Amino acid sequence: MPDVAALPLIGASALRARAAARVLRTLPTDVKDGALAAMADALVERVDEILAANALDVNAARADGTPESTVDRLRLDAGRVAGVAEALRTLIALPDPVGDVVRGSRLPNGLELRQVRVPLGVVGIVYEARPNVTVDAAGLCLKSGNAALLRGSASAHRTNTVLVAVMTEALSKAGLPEGSIELLPADRASVGELLGARGFVDVVIPRGGGSLIQRVVNEAKVPVIETGEGNCHVYVDASADPATAEAVVLNSKTHRVSVCNSAETLLVHRDVPFLPRLLAALADAGVTLHGDEAARAAVDGVLPATDEDWATEYLSMDMAVRVVDDLPAALDHIARWSTGHTEAIVADSASAIAAFTAGVDSAAVMVNASTRFTDGGEFGFGAEIGISTQKLHARGPLGLPELTSTTYVVTGNGHVR
Amino acid sequence: MPDVAALPLIGASALRARAAARVLRTLPTDVKDGALAAMADALVERVDEILAANALDVNAARADGTPESTVDRLRLDAGRVAGVAEALRTLIALPDPVGDVVRGSRLPNGLELRQVRVPLGVVGIVYEARPNVTVDAAGLCLKSGNAALLRGSASAHRTNTVLVAVMTEALSKAGLPEGSIELLPADRASVGELLGARGFVDVVIPRGGGSLIQRVVNEAKVPVIETGEGNCHVYVDASADPATAEAVVLNSKTHRVSVCNSAETLLVHRDVPFLPRLLAALADAGVTLHGDEAARAAVDGVLPATDEDWATEYLSMDMAVRVVDDLPAALDHIARWSTGHTEAIVADSASAIAAFTAGVDSAAVMVNASTRFTDGGEFGFGAEIGISTQKLHARGPLGLPELTSTTYVVTGNGHVR
Repeated sequence: MPDVAALPLIGASALRARAAARVLRTLPTDVKDGALAAMADALVERVDEILAANALDVNAARADGTPESTVDRLRLDAGRVAGVAEALRTLIALPDPVGDVVRGSRLPNGLELRQVRVPLGVVGIVYEARPNVTVDAAGLCLKSGNAALLRGSASAHRTNTVLVAVMTEALSKAGLPEGSIELLPADRASVGELLGARGFVDVVIPRGGGSLIQRVVNEAKVPVIETGEGNCHVYVDASADPATAEAVVLNSKTHRVSVCNSAETLLVHRDVPFLPRLLAALADAGVTLHGDEAARAAVDGVLPATDEDWATEYLSMDMAVRVVDDLPAALDHIARWSTGHTEAIVADSASAIAAFTAGVDSAAVMVNASTRFTDGGEFGFGAEIGISTQKLHARGPLGLPELTSTTYVVTGNGHVR
Repeated sequence: MPDVAALPLIGASALRARAAARVLRTLPTDVKDGALAAMADALVERVDEILAANALDVNAARADGTPESTVDRLRLDAGRVAGVAEALRTLIALPDPVGDVVRGSRLPNGLELRQVRVPLGVVGIVYEARPNVTVDAAGLCLKSGNAALLRGSASAHRTNTVLVAVMTEALSKAGLPEGSIELLPADRASVGELLGARGFVDVVIPRGGGSLIQRVVNEAKVPVIETGEGNCHVYVDASADPATAEAVVLNSKTHRVSVCNSAETLLVHRDVPFLPRLLAALADAGVTLHGDEAARAAVDGVLPATDEDWATEYLSMDMAVRVVDDLPAALDHIARWSTGHTEAIVADSASAIAAFTAGVDSAAVMVNASTRFTDGGEFGFGAEIGISTQKLHARGPLGLPELTSTTYVVTGNGHVR
């Protein structure tokens, strides 16, 4: 048996969540949907309390000299609160994965076999200073029948405390158990406890940068789903249409540079005649290019690229550029340097597209489309809790089905072996 | 980039496997099936070499005073070699999961979205002194397009070396890459290297007892699928048919006591009138009973049970017995003590069956059927590499689809956001 005494910061919450999970797994969809509606209503009704707490967090962050871009992610206003409430309501319209029969058959001996989706149980989420994640994660966990252990940033703790109190009160009125949504202390040590809480938590999903992911990998004794690191590539084949290449490359790099599905490296087949024009278009859009010798020979102003550039997720208006001899060389580069998030090919050759699609081992492969499309909303999943870059359990955008496990239910009439 | 220098024992094998995996993921089914047939033929043709090596392992084990039951698991003869070869041939008939489209749709913007099964990549398997696992695991990995890093027991190393050499030579003649099947050194430290080989191995599957699982949990930096621990329960409801209860309980406990899907604890509703007869039948079958007060009052000769009994996976002709006040009390007991493998209910009440099925959080729930049915072969999966007791990725018997991941392939015609 796991020992709750080893969890001084999160033990009480973990016990409540574990008890709540046993109830949540049995709730019908309409009860969960009613609770989501009640949560959304309560957030809108109590917006003043939420904004008052948020103002304290924002002022404290500014007093600490936090960069304004970070403060902006932390900041709520009435419109943003209405937005997170609306996001909860969109979950109501999504199908409940719990109870889905994934496969079923009658075995030769007459046993009825059904593989049924069930909630994971208790889901821990570690995230940064975006209060909307507190509501999104709580809603996704609830709809999928899971209890949520939320470990947000210390800088958002006052906001998160009010958000969770408002949601919990609404849940309680809807008859759902306490412990369905638990906010954990924002102490640094609470992450360590969560990562070691075997028997109390069924999975931990870290949402954050490389250092959080690395800590999780090193410390976790519980199952984790890694999310978010995206060193994404766009390969422009010799068969590519110039206008398509320019549109896809520019959009992949410049549409929003700070997100994991933006492109970081451009690989171009050496027979592409429009390389100078493509690089000039990137430079004109404000992109700083870091290239190999062939790229530097194509246009002026390209900085020399090193292995560091191939490895870096810039998350900025920088892009590495490499000219490759052929498609296998592009695949070799991607196999060596990619984080396995998203790679795109621009090509008109069906055989090149097939070889690229078969040869790339990433969560998503875009064919003549921007890397920016790897997104739960764009994929039509309605919501996502992150984008998995691991191969086990779930890869790519994590929607409601990815927050479930399965049970085999086998029905006989006294069957023995 | 991961550093192969940190892997002195397994690094060379891991690099070969990683390179092989890039080829294996692209192979069509008929090429893989041809290789499986060639492996099976080669094992039968070269049975003398295999048995000669196995005799050395068996003699060394006997000289070390290894228990005869363990020696029997290690021992091969011509019939057993033919059996493992036949098991490879049965894989040929199974569907190849690679390339299956798990879901697909046309998005509103015209993008074609397909979620396609792909191999995991490099699969590490740590197992004990059963040489048949060497062949089974190699075959399952190959059919699912994965490279296999096999870490068997030191006591079977001579046998495993010949088995892998025979299979590798057959693969090579079939045109498959070296590195498709790699036998790792049997040093204790090679397990540690495997568990830390991030970037080289995509998943490690430990097959073994509690101490191996615990080591994996504590040390693993790579994703793992836990298998095998089974503290399984049978609950006999007040509505149970006496003959069905007796058949299911006896079969669950006594059919084969040393396996993970055998039952360890019997929970009986206090209103079951045939408790004395049920316990007497178990005792008559040679089962040593460890019971609570009510069980001890029902028949003579029941030893007193402690928490240790509720927690123990006996793997022997012992069974713990507890009389519970109602079905929720049975669910509470299971929630506290189960390892999440298999629980069974014997009942005629549909509402009791529904409550049990909804309330139990295990890989499999048997309704009026023996716990012994949780098995890849019994489920019709044709083969299994183990039985997962974890909730992420795969739960229950691990067949070919469970050895895959997925990639989202998104096709556009210049789509940008």
